[in-house]
This record gives sequence, C-alpha cells and structure tokens, in this order.
Amino acid sequence: MRKPLWDLAFSLALILSPFGAQAETSSETQATGDLGLVVERATGSVLEIDRSDRAALGRIEGLGDLSHASLTYSPDERYAYVFGRDGGLSKVDLVAQKLVARVVQAGNSIGGAISDDGKLVAVSNYEPGGVKVFDAETLALVADIPMKGKTIGLVDVPGRRFAWAVWDTGEVFLGDFKGDPKVSMIGNAGKNPFDAVITDDAHTYLVGLFGEKGVTAFDLWAEAPQPLHFLTDYGREGEDMPVYKMPHLQSWAFAEGQYALPAVGRHQVLWVDRQSLKQTAATEVAGQPVFIIEQPASPYVWVNFALPDNGKVQVIDSRSHEVVATLEPGAAILHMEFAPRGAEVWMSARDDNKVVIYDTQTREKTGEIAAEAPSGIFFTARAHRSGL
Amino acid sequence: MRKPLWDLAFSLALILSPFGAQAETSSETQATGDLGLVVERATGSVLEIDRSDRAALGRIEGLGDLSHASLTYSPDERYAYVFGRDGGLSKVDLVAQKLVARVVQAGNSIGGAISDDGKLVAVSNYEPGGVKVFDAETLALVADIPMKGKTIGLVDVPGRRFAWAVWDTGEVFLGDFKGDPKVSMIGNAGKNPFDAVITDDAHTYLVGLFGEKGVTAFDLWAEAPQPLHFLTDYGREGEDMPVYKMPHLQSWAFAEGQYALPAVGRHQVLWVDRQSLKQTAATEVAGQPVFIIEQPASPYVWVNFALPDNGKVQVIDSRSHEVVATLEPGAAILHMEFAPRGAEVWMSARDDNKVVIYDTQTREKTGEIAAEAPSGIFFTARAHRSGL
Repeated sequence: MRKPLWDLAFSLALILSPFGAQAETSSETQATGDLGLVVERATGSVLEIDRSDRAALGRIEGLGDLSHASLTYSPDERYAYVFGRDGGLSKVDLVAQKLVARVVQAGNSIGGAISDDGKLVAVSNYEPGGVKVFDAETLALVADIPMKGKTIGLVDVPGRRFAWAVWDTGEVFLGDFKGDPKVSMIGNAGKNPFDAVITDDAHTYLVGLFGEKGVTAFDLWAEAPQPLHFLTDYGREGEDMPVYKMPHLQSWAFAEGQYALPAVGRHQVLWVDRQSLKQTAATEVAGQPVFIIEQPASPYVWVNFALPDNGKVQVIDSRSHEVVATLEPGAAILHMEFAPRGAEVWMSARDDNKVVIYDTQTREKTGEIAAEAPSGIFFTARAHRSGL
Repeated sequence: MRKPLWDLAFSLALILSPFGAQAETSSETQATGDLGLVVERATGSVLEIDRSDRAALGRIEGLGDLSHASLTYSPDERYAYVFGRDGGLSKVDLVAQKLVARVVQAGNSIGGAISDDGKLVAVSNYEPGGVKVFDAETLALVADIPMKGKTIGLVDVPGRRFAWAVWDTGEVFLGDFKGDPKVSMIGNAGKNPFDAVITDDAHTYLVGLFGEKGVTAFDLWAEAPQPLHFLTDYGREGEDMPVYKMPHLQSWAFAEGQYALPAVGRHQVLWVDRQSLKQTAATEVAGQPVFIIEQPASPYVWVNFALPDNGKVQVIDSRSHEVVATLEPGAAILHMEFAPRGAEVWMSARDDNKVVIYDTQTREKTGEIAAEAPSGIFFTARAHRSGL
C-alpha cells in the first residue's frame, strides 16, 4: 500500500508542477545515510544537517531542556531518540523533519542507548535514579528498573542487552531484554562512577571513577565478568586541580592497541595498553580534556577542553603520543563529530553560534553552518556502530 | 528548490488521495540506513532488500554479467556502484529502485572502491589491466592508469587515495587524487597477488600471494611503506590440495589482536598476531575457506567453503581458535553479510535460490527471502566503513 501511494504523489508532482523536470532529484534529502542532528542547547531544538551538502535542512523544536543532551538513531537512520536533561525522551523523524513522539519519563535523565536490533530504547536517569526501557516504535514503557541511585554510562550490548553503572553505589548491571527482562549485578566498579563506555567490539566495559583514582574494566565476553581496576596511581605525586567540567569517556579503540583516557582534573591524556591495562604514556595538553575522539582510519585523536581552554582543540599522534597540531576553531568548542570514514570533522563553537567544518588531512576549515548555541553533533552513521 | 517541490507533491497526495491518512508512512522505505542489494549472478540483476523488514523491495535489471560482482555505496547510502565481470560499472539508485547510469569501461573487471569523501569511484581491471577512476556523480572518466598486468585488491585509503596490486608483477601502487593525480609504486608484494585488504583503521594493507607462500603487509601510516612478508612457511610439511575457489581476504580486525586468514589450498584458518605478524594458531575446518568474516561486536568469525563443502558454514571463537558451531544453512553458501551491529547474518544459498537469515546469538534461522541464484549481499551500512 505504501509505496504505490508515494508513487502517486510523485506522479502528481510530475504532472502538476512547473518544476517537473527536477522531480527526480526532489527526494534527494531523504537518503538518510549522510544526515545528522546538532543539539541547540539553549533553545530546546535540533538542527538537521546534510553532511555531504554541508547544509542545514531545517530545525525541529519543542524538545525541552537540551542543556545536556545526547541522542541515538534507529537502524534505518530515519529516527533519532533524543535524551534531554529534563527527563524527556523525544523521537524525531529526519525524513519528515518533525517531532513524532515525546514522553517525559523522569525528572532528570543523563543519556540512553538503542538495542542492537533497534527494538528497544533504554534511558538512564538521575532523578529518580534507575533505568527505563521503551518500545522504539511507540515509546511505550516496556520495563521500569529502579536503582539505588543515579545511573550513568548506559550502553547497548549485543543480544538486546544494556549495561550501566550506579553513581551512588558503584554497582554495574547488565540487563537482558531478549525474552523476559533479566537484570543482574555483575560487579562493583568502585567509588562514584561518572561515565562509562563499551569498546567498539563490545568486549570491554570501561567505567571511569570520580570518587577514587582509576578506571574499572569488565570483560563482557566472560561467563562471569570480574572488575579489573587500573590507572590507580596516576597523579599521586601532585595536587589535583579543580574539575571544571566532567570529561567524557568517548574514546577507546586504536589500532595501536591503546586506550586514550582523560586524566580527571589534570591537563593530561593518559595512554593505556589494552592488553595489560598498564599506563604506557601521558601527553601534556592545553587544558582539562573533555572529549578525546579517534579520527577514524588514522593514527590521530582529537581533544577538546574545559574552561578556560575551551577555544582550543589539539591533535595527538597515538604512536608517538605527541601533540601534532593545536587549533583554535572558535569560541567554546563543545563537541567534535567525524565523518564516519574520517575525511572531515565538524565542531560545535557554542559562543560563535556556528558549527565549523575542518578537513582532517589539511586541518584547515572548509565550511561552517549557523546554529544556535550548538553542543552535541550526531551523524546518522552512528546507527551502525555498537555502543554509540 | 528541491525540498519545497517534494513538499508540494506530498501535500497533493494528502489532498487528493483517499489514503491520505497513511501519507506519513508512505516514504518509509526511503530511509536508506537499513537497505541492501543482493547480487543475482545468473540474471544480471540485483535484488533490493529492507533489512529491518526482512523483505525484498524490488529487482533492478540490466547490469550485465554479474557472475563475479561486487559493489560499494555512496556516503548518503542512496547509490550503489556495481562492478561487473564484463567491465561494466553500473550506478543504481536505491530510492528510485532503478539503474541511473552505466558504462562498460573495460573488457573484464574485478572490483572497485569509492573514495573516503564519496567523490570518486575507482575500478580495477583484468582486461586490459589497469585502474580507471570515475566521477561518482556522473561516471565521467577522471583518470585512466594503465598497468603492466591485471590489477587486484583495490581499496580506498583516506585522503581521496586508492591502493592496489598487480597480479603479473607483484607491484603495489598508491594513487592520490586529492589534487592532480599522483600514482606511485610503494613496493613489491611478491609472486602473483590474488587479493588484498586494508585494515579497518586504514593502517595496514595486506596482500595475499598465490605464486608463493605467504602474505605481505604494508604500513600505510609510514612515510615510506616497506613490504613485510609473513606466513612464509605454513604448510611446508604437506602437499597442497588443488584450489577449487580463490579465497577472499575480507577479514582482519579482531579485538583479540589477530588476523584470521585462509590457508590457500588447505582446510585451515590461520591466526596471526597483528603486532608480531607471527602465526599463533591454525584451526582445522570443514573445507577450503572462501570468506572468513568477523561477526561484529563479538569474539566470533564465520567461515564458508569452496566446493564440495559449500553447504556448510562454521563459527570459530577467536579466543580459543576452536570451531563452536557447524551449520548447514542451504545449498551453495556463497556469501555472508552481518547486520552492522551483529544481531543477525544473511547468507546466500545460491542453489536454493534464497537468502537465509540467522540470529547470531541463537544461531537459528529467523527468516528467508527468495532470490535468483544469489551471491554477494551488501548492506548500505558499508558506506560508512573504510576499505569496504
């Protein structure tokens, strides 16, 4: 039924429109592989962009408080699920460029993920703490899992599963939703986990700690995952600086077999061997790292910083651990998103009200797009990656 | 201009069609993130499929000789570039479900790739040997690079570059098309390269040899890449069997830090440490391996086989190197394609005229789709990966 109807609309356009000759290209923006959304944090809106055309397509409004928002995509790259600070879960249709569903599911939420098969969306909440799981199509509640505190670092795990940690107790949980929901505590990560990530092969769940030094790893391929604590003695010799912004652990997979991690409260990026979990190097950088993100298909990572250094971005070679470039792309660089094959990077310059685009090979600016106080940038290619 | 026109067509459908209430879902199949094409080798056609719906959407015909065909996708996941045995390069529009351009650019071609920015499509040819580069939008010839023999293993390299090898001479070339085309010979891989791959981080170009034992690696991050020859003495103690089908080297990146490679002419999968390039293990399997493909976000690889064992598929755990499952999904399993996050695998059963779908967790069949003598299966998610 569906396709013939669209054909009808299309035929009518051919007949009735003076622009009939252009009809074939009129649906060009509906191929969704190179679309994306930019979170406009102050206005509760997202800006839809076309990555290939380096153009804004439209603005979708009414998404609530997006002052600390993230989002994830459906497998067909048509729908985005936006997790807002106010506990709102909003479903945005990128083809129709509109909000199609919204539930305020908690008082304060921190992020979420979509299951590997695209059927379920899980949200981790601060107030009240816990995890809620929704049907991805209808946003109907599927499971409500109370926790003894704020949940952080929720990620998708293959087999319609999710993992998360609890700030207050340090406990790490694995939820399995393939049949009847089963939730089990798999171990304690340590004091006050502030963020967590899963490696791109879904092998290791890495939990960053705020209440004590170090990071805790869980081998999710093991029958009974055990917490492995590492980086426990970095920075012991000096005084930590105040933390201006909590870093994100969105960086893990390097060909050189390393993790690159932010040193909480320090102007350093720490390098850890993936096999041994030993620190191998530390790179002095321009400020407190916020995001450390791998440039795909390259030896480089890009780093942005907390105040007062958030106008800078540095590029580090993961082989030598040396800073190879320091850029000043704009005022208040909040996020960086790479084209999935690495040819360019888009960066949010919040206080310039624009997104700037750099060629990763020349490291020069190739374009920019106006946006209202932009923060997170999310390309639809994320739909095809585990743990994003 | 484009979008308003489409809006007009859409509005007309709402006004004029008795099915107006369904208009919102009428464009559902145009989100292109979960589409794919199945090569129908005997009929010169491709079957367009919707991965989420596990359904065929339509058949596109007139693509020439597809008896050994591959294809690649544009960054927006709208267009496929199909490389046919007859030297034909065909551009297929997945939204309109039709052939939009076709050039017969050589007498016999073997495969191709699209540049990281989506601007250029390169084809490696057997007859006459050499590489031709085309504008991805128009298929106009951009560069014609003659070679002293058949070209194999052509891959995209970041920075609008391509690498390939020459069967007759063993030479490996890197072509840079960011400015004026520059083509340089970077080294000799050895006797009769039969296929080559690039790792997913674009770090290492691996060239499989047919005229001598072994595989040759080139570090493409190095200023001056050098050939590193390894696996030079496997199988020395026994007599090789005749090779029924040339294997493909489409498998490289494992969390366990290994390559899994087919032992040419043997019933073995060879494991090589990525850092040391030393063989670490060999797995006895049910036949001569053809494809060894990583199940995304898992410790497993799946293997299919040459005649007479091409009705079997085996699953190997990359940690223990043991076969953990032997499946018989159908008659003449020619190819396997995983959902990008690994939840299921689609397999072509050529002599059953169908594609069978397996859940990767239960390893049980969950669906099938009729297709004419199917061979290669290509999901649009490939658009976002280097080297595919």
